[in-house]
Amino acid sequence: MTDHDHSDREEFAHDPIGHAAVDGDMSVSELIEQYGHAGIGATQISEAVDIYAEMLSGDVTNVFGLAGAMVPSGMRQIVADLIRDGHIDALVTTGANLTHDTIEAIGGKHHHGELGDTPTETTEYDEQLRDEGVDRIYNVYLPQEHFALFEDHLREHVFPPLEAEGVVSIQRFTEQLGKANSQINDSEAIDEDGGIAAAAYENDVPAYCPAVQDSVLGLQAWMYSQTSDFSLDALADMTGLNDVAYEAEKAGAMIVGGGVPKNYVLQTMLVVPGAYDYAVQLTMDPPQTGGLSGATLDEARSWGKLEKSARNVSVYADATITLPLVVAGARSQL
Amino acid sequence: MTDHDHSDREEFAHDPIGHAAVDGDMSVSELIEQYGHAGIGATQISEAVDIYAEMLSGDVTNVFGLAGAMVPSGMRQIVADLIRDGHIDALVTTGANLTHDTIEAIGGKHHHGELGDTPTETTEYDEQLRDEGVDRIYNVYLPQEHFALFEDHLREHVFPPLEAEGVVSIQRFTEQLGKANSQINDSEAIDEDGGIAAAAYENDVPAYCPAVQDSVLGLQAWMYSQTSDFSLDALADMTGLNDVAYEAEKAGAMIVGGGVPKNYVLQTMLVVPGAYDYAVQLTMDPPQTGGLSGATLDEARSWGKLEKSARNVSVYADATITLPLVVAGARSQL
Amino acid sequence: MTDHDHSDREEFAHDPIGHAAVDGDMSVSELIEQYGHAGIGATQISEAVDIYAEMLSGDVTNVFGLAGAMVPSGMRQIVADLIRDGHIDALVTTGANLTHDTIEAIGGKHHHGELGDTPTETTEYDEQLRDEGVDRIYNVYLPQEHFALFEDHLREHVFPPLEAEGVVSIQRFTEQLGKANSQINDSEAIDEDGGIAAAAYENDVPAYCPAVQDSVLGLQAWMYSQTSDFSLDALADMTGLNDVAYEAEKAGAMIVGGGVPKNYVLQTMLVVPGAYDYAVQLTMDPPQTGGLSGATLDEARSWGKLEKSARNVSVYADATITLPLVVAGARSQL
Amino acid sequence: MTDHDHSDREEFAHDPIGHAAVDGDMSVSELIEQYGHAGIGATQISEAVDIYAEMLSGDVTNVFGLAGAMVPSGMRQIVADLIRDGHIDALVTTGANLTHDTIEAIGGKHHHGELGDTPTETTEYDEQLRDEGVDRIYNVYLPQEHFALFEDHLREHVFPPLEAEGVVSIQRFTEQLGKANSQINDSEAIDEDGGIAAAAYENDVPAYCPAVQDSVLGLQAWMYSQTSDFSLDALADMTGLNDVAYEAEKAGAMIVGGGVPKNYVLQTMLVVPGAYDYAVQLTMDPPQTGGLSGATLDEARSWGKLEKSARNVSVYADATITLPLVVAGARSQL
Repeated sequence: MTDHDHSDREEFAHDPIGHAAVDGDMSVSELIEQYGHAGIGATQISEAVDIYAEMLSGDVTNVFGLAGAMVPSGMRQIVADLIRDGHIDALVTTGANLTHDTIEAIGGKHHHGELGDTPTETTEYDEQLRDEGVDRIYNVYLPQEHFALFEDHLREHVFPPLEAEGVVSIQRFTEQLGKANSQINDSEAIDEDGGIAAAAYENDVPAYCPAVQDSVLGLQAWMYSQTSDFSLDALADMTGLNDVAYEAEKAGAMIVGGGVPKNYVLQTMLVVPGAYDYAVQLTMDPPQTGGLSGATLDEARSWGKLEKSARNVSVYADATITLPLVVAGARSQL
Repeated sequence: MTDHDHSDREEFAHDPIGHAAVDGDMSVSELIEQYGHAGIGATQISEAVDIYAEMLSGDVTNVFGLAGAMVPSGMRQIVADLIRDGHIDALVTTGANLTHDTIEAIGGKHHHGELGDTPTETTEYDEQLRDEGVDRIYNVYLPQEHFALFEDHLREHVFPPLEAEGVVSIQRFTEQLGKANSQINDSEAIDEDGGIAAAAYENDVPAYCPAVQDSVLGLQAWMYSQTSDFSLDALADMTGLNDVAYEAEKAGAMIVGGGVPKNYVLQTMLVVPGAYDYAVQLTMDPPQTGGLSGATLDEARSWGKLEKSARNVSVYADATITLPLVVAGARSQL
Repeated sequence: MTDHDHSDREEFAHDPIGHAAVDGDMSVSELIEQYGHAGIGATQISEAVDIYAEMLSGDVTNVFGLAGAMVPSGMRQIVADLIRDGHIDALVTTGANLTHDTIEAIGGKHHHGELGDTPTETTEYDEQLRDEGVDRIYNVYLPQEHFALFEDHLREHVFPPLEAEGVVSIQRFTEQLGKANSQINDSEAIDEDGGIAAAAYENDVPAYCPAVQDSVLGLQAWMYSQTSDFSLDALADMTGLNDVAYEAEKAGAMIVGGGVPKNYVLQTMLVVPGAYDYAVQLTMDPPQTGGLSGATLDEARSWGKLEKSARNVSVYADATITLPLVVAGARSQL
Repeated sequence: MTDHDHSDREEFAHDPIGHAAVDGDMSVSELIEQYGHAGIGATQISEAVDIYAEMLSGDVTNVFGLAGAMVPSGMRQIVADLIRDGHIDALVTTGANLTHDTIEAIGGKHHHGELGDTPTETTEYDEQLRDEGVDRIYNVYLPQEHFALFEDHLREHVFPPLEAEGVVSIQRFTEQLGKANSQINDSEAIDEDGGIAAAAYENDVPAYCPAVQDSVLGLQAWMYSQTSDFSLDALADMTGLNDVAYEAEKAGAMIVGGGVPKNYVLQTMLVVPGAYDYAVQLTMDPPQTGGLSGATLDEARSWGKLEKSARNVSVYADATITLPLVVAGARSQL
């Protein structure tokens, strides 16, 4: 119906889509290769693997942002293993993830539920959970008694050593938390390993938690501060993260979920000369809300948070599905 | 803070969340096992694999709904292979998927693009594509000349044999399309295989396309009908699909995307005594819009489209990521 | 931190964001004006009002696409009134909307439910609805006995007059449906008015329904076709809609929801010389899935469905909220 | 097709859906009434108005959570007016909203852009913005020189008075920010009013900002802390908010967007005997991700953040559209 001179087409690559083929015996790396032939989100997964593998291979300083209910939903080991293998140079996460990480470090368990098709249940259902003392996180369930054990752990092993130091940085707090988690996990031979804070402590990786007060961990810290000299400095950590960014030869950001961790990882580049050379984000938040959680990484270019030449990709799909896939895929290329 | 008698807790299973661990050498089936330990979408992927494997193993009649840009985005081979291996007993898809399936069958290619972070581009970008004669489907690009070749193929090999039959069913039309695709793909030794319609034709699997007129394939059919006796009967196919449902010992629905294919697959159960015993849906459409595309499979229970005892799960994530994963995972259990 | 010569900034308009102010006495048109000062979705609402008002004012041929559960959710009167006031020249909708439109025309009612926070309920809840004979559409409930009355109406007033005509177009079918709805609504003095199909019939507005077989209306038509000469031609309607597009001085598309109606409205421009001069879409479907439902209107430019110079906007929010707002706002400017 | 004894139907209300009708002269309160007849999101808007009006009428302590790019997108005046009219007893917001609130208080402006259909642009586009010194927030643009003026304002009027106080609470910081904004806005007769922080200061409403360090405001505070005794205590504010919650006769939460503000508003109920009696959330974040941002308010019941008897509703749509609508609607009922 149209008659074009096609020789001057600029706006698409002459790179044909292939059709993914799968079988029951394939490896994850073979699956990733198949995604690479395809389009839409599949190609983004493949690109994410490729970029993340490059981030983990070379002389790249890697900052990892972890938001969302990632620990309750079982992503704890993957992050702890990345830390232990030297693949995370600085971690930015939420108080909730550190709370649930600690609950598991001391032997607590989250549980699967008896779900319907989607686990958004009736009011009556949540009222019964309330009566039974079970907290719900979408399709993950936590018996409330674990919060009492969590409190005991903090009051015995975490707050007292810090009290003498007065107002400490949040990173100092997560470091002591990691130390306590590591020791008790070891001494009590807990089934699950020490987890994220413990791995960060053991490997001298700073764990930042800018909104720590927005969590049960923060509520506990506040309660303890009411009867002691202990408190947390909201600003002190920025020096550490900015130094990490400043000293990076090349810098990469792996961002799981949005929220405070995403922006905190990115904004550090506003006060140093450089910007991220690599960025991968795994999120369900769409750009259409205008919020930072779903904002494209190109938007971050306008702010100077990413280099104009940065390699970057966003994968818009459930991070509990994409994080294991991307990490396994990237590891297969190392 | 609360004091409960925990012995009577009913609302969650005492089934602890495990933490997924991944490495670079793992197989897809090992990855799926790791998802099964975890929560949120990861557990839904694992459940989807489990249900789909059961659907493919036993004496289950499987109806497959395929909506969305699945062929342009490289999911064609996966569906064709399922048909060839006897895993699809009836297919319901869109005119667009059959259009793009045919373009590849006769040697056409879709292309990757030179993307930014997300492939939602500026007005100017799409204006240039228009000038260059390239159609865009998110991050997949199709040079328009393939539609002319598609038209030639239909006018040479598909419409003429049907013309003598007068008003035919849509399934008869897709069958002839599949036959023509299969033959030309073979005789011209095209690189990609014959594809979905061809596989359906070769294996006597009915391919239904209720909204065929809503596609370039439909526009071509209409143009041909203007100068011939050829036309399509909108209702005739329902007999075939209802018979499939009626005769099923056990019935399963695999639903990729929403739209007409999803409802058409489900509604057949309104006119037969039974209902689906299994259902898996892979979609990004959320329930919150109230539309049928994102509706939970529980909602389908209220209508009698699913058995009250059906096994079912919805996975809310990009289907170009989840379809290869679920099919590979299910195949590993066969 | 940066030092720019700002005189050559090209990439943003020097048009300040104002801050919306609201009070309890304001009119909808004053509210729309406030949205116009603001950003993100608010500015898109304001732009949608402006474009739709221009579409309704001038010599524009308006094609209206109506997908999603818009009739069950109470959007029926708004669409019927637009038809009656000459603001819709051709309608493209779904079999489901016509089914529920007819149920209300003959005196049936949909119902509010006893909702929790979000109406995605447990499996048990939907099982009980099944036992009680109530069909659920998100938070809207329909007692099943209305489908029996719907069947009676069709078999008495709609199918018999068409039977003599043999295979008819789908538009001829919706026209007869509208006639029957109008007459019975009138003669039985039903509380709700005749509705969308009736208004289309009374005002000689063609109502197209490309996937009519994908609905209870379609199932009824199929059942009737089994024992009569009645059937529906899937292709015949395209002539009518293409003529509407061909003859339009200026053409505008108002698209509510995605699905078949969206594409069918747009694709008609592939076979006529022109393209849409205006387009507004109200949807919750995001572009990120790659599917046509959430595709940007810029993507439609690459295909030639919109003029390169077209005025267009997409509003990504619940259409049951935005449709009343945009229609009221546009009407205030007429 | 089924035969039920309908007298015992329990699972839906016998409350018919009405059909919204709109015209060009209607008031917002008439529009809200029309939404109330309808289903899906429309009924949720109506319910949100009803609950919020009850929250604002009675003896209810109202905590307001404000996340997302609400100030850049023009929602600043609505929030400031609610504070001035006594409708907010405590505010929880983000550092970004306070940053942009202050930029406008001192005479800066955000700008509309020259958008395509959706404002997710190409990499090249954002690279050009970078070169031109313009920061993008979806479809809102901010010339970077305003950050230099913002820095001057903080260094002149906000940090010095606090320096003598040493480590201060974040609320003390936002109070001084509000005082400075109010004074300069007044003395320099800025066009826009003093804004949110100023209104909070003027009306003795505490403004909490748990993740203040995650913003340009926080970066500035950190830089100042490097060369002075000034710093911020991360925990001190919790006493204030918990006291507000403890002393409330009845407590209500209006939550715009998710993120830290949402959880911080809700979690305060974990350490006091009561829980929220009312809650409204306006968000685009879906529950399906499992994150707290999109979590249903029923989930919050399981934690004891909402009373089992609380009135609550979630509206899943763009908050820049729904906030003006809900506030105007609620105000019309006062």
